[in-house]
Amino acid sequence: MAERYVHTLRVRYRECDQQGVVFNGHYFSWFDDVFTEGLREAGLPYKEIIDAGVDMVVAEATARYRSGARFDDEVDLHWWVTRLGNTGMTTRIDVMRGDDLLVEGELRYVFVDAGTTNKRPMPDDIRAKLEPYVASDG
Amino acid sequence: MAERYVHTLRVRYRECDQQGVVFNGHYFSWFDDVFTEGLREAGLPYKEIIDAGVDMVVAEATARYRSGARFDDEVDLHWWVTRLGNTGMTTRIDVMRGDDLLVEGELRYVFVDAGTTNKRPMPDDIRAKLEPYVASDG
Amino acid sequence: MAERYVHTLRVRYRECDQQGVVFNGHYFSWFDDVFTEGLREAGLPYKEIIDAGVDMVVAEATARYRSGARFDDEVDLHWWVTRLGNTGMTTRIDVMRGDDLLVEGELRYVFVDAGTTNKRPMPDDIRAKLEPYVASDG
Amino acid sequence: MAERYVHTLRVRYRECDQQGVVFNGHYFSWFDDVFTEGLREAGLPYKEIIDAGVDMVVAEATARYRSGARFDDEVDLHWWVTRLGNTGMTTRIDVMRGDDLLVEGELRYVFVDAGTTNKRPMPDDIRAKLEPYVASDG
Repeated sequence: MAERYVHTLRVRYRECDQQGVVFNGHYFSWFDDVFTEGLREAGLPYKEIIDAGVDMVVAEATARYRSGARFDDEVDLHWWVTRLGNTGMTTRIDVMRGDDLLVEGELRYVFVDAGTTNKRPMPDDIRAKLEPYVASDG
Repeated sequence: MAERYVHTLRVRYRECDQQGVVFNGHYFSWFDDVFTEGLREAGLPYKEIIDAGVDMVVAEATARYRSGARFDDEVDLHWWVTRLGNTGMTTRIDVMRGDDLLVEGELRYVFVDAGTTNKRPMPDDIRAKLEPYVASDG
Repeated sequence: MAERYVHTLRVRYRECDQQGVVFNGHYFSWFDDVFTEGLREAGLPYKEIIDAGVDMVVAEATARYRSGARFDDEVDLHWWVTRLGNTGMTTRIDVMRGDDLLVEGELRYVFVDAGTTNKRPMPDDIRAKLEPYVASDG
Repeated sequence: MAERYVHTLRVRYRECDQQGVVFNGHYFSWFDDVFTEGLREAGLPYKEIIDAGVDMVVAEATARYRSGARFDDEVDLHWWVTRLGNTGMTTRIDVMRGDDLLVEGELRYVFVDAGTTNKRPMPDDIRAKLEPYVASDG
């Protein structure tokens, strides 16, 4: 049974637009926040990854919007890994308000040498720490 | 031969992160800006659409990142429509730096009654004004 | 002895620019977040204020930067009220990293009728709930 | 007669909050954008300043809000210098909608050695290029 990291946040006033819901682009900011915190929980603080000479760049990002989060809503972002490849990985984020799935996010990352755009294999220790979070996408 | 709306902008300092490139989520802000301006060029100022009781909500948004835009780069966002459906439409945005394609964006919108999330058919006058921008996705 | 509301957050990757510190404008986003949460702690959820027909608009905002917060820093935002006037109030926010004062914020608000820009007196119940947070600015 | 650099922009949908006006913190993003463009017009592209080993950090930022800019408004940001000191300078930005002054910004910068927080004198060539933009604050 795969683990999921759950990050809870409350929707900020400044994140909502005149439609009364979170602006569609802001979910990608949340996805980045949950990525950092998910890695931390997996024992992989992002700064330590960088210091070890490795970095990850986003190759593809998708959000599917079913319903909009509103100001002051408390939402849970469920984060897990759907694919651990050789030089890349894919993650999923479900944005939930209680039992309602509001938005599904999917991000594909490529491993590079830090400070460059040169692709490189995922280091074994990173792979080992992410494996508990691997599950299918849904 | 379909028309494309081209929106040019210069990358702002605040949009770049410590990787030295535009933060992945900010492209979705640009996509929203070019949507507003593309509609205006098509003769459909967003405020007039709203005033007519119609609105569009984003149902799905994707970006495929090939290369990162950097501070002070001048980039051209090419915007066009890839599908005009009954209650929805899909648009594409190519973010170019000169001849280099940096990022491909794809956004799917659903038409709703303004101020609600009730799906509705795309009004004929909106369809007529968007038709010149329809082309395949690439 | 006045109360202070303390809001703790961890600096997000996307908030830091190429100087390696939080972009100066983002502190004002934090100030707005701590305002909402400070009001909530004072027994004044912002949505209830609005529903009661009252709103607050920012008339002046200042930040004095002594040192920059960096990615992954855990910072505490200390929020209190320095002035409760007839139609307005002023708040202070000290952004602390441990014992270091990084940034001082000051925001002046004006009370208006919700949905308008018409100035109005601060309601008595709001005043009563904010009084415990009143202290001088230093 | 001092010169002013004027930067025109159209308010983006995503910059407006549920009060129907630009979120107060976003004006500081605009101030940063106009700073970069004002320097460019003065013959001081920011990248060249950095490459010469010099940088500027914001020491204090203030905005006084008289009226809110709204979605689709075309606004002019008038930028000039109010003080050229030894190691710092102060700038002003008036955000105008036609003849209406909406927001007044004031930013104080300190010159540092690039990549550090070590204060340093303003280089003479930078001073010379900024002098045409010096005027009192009002």
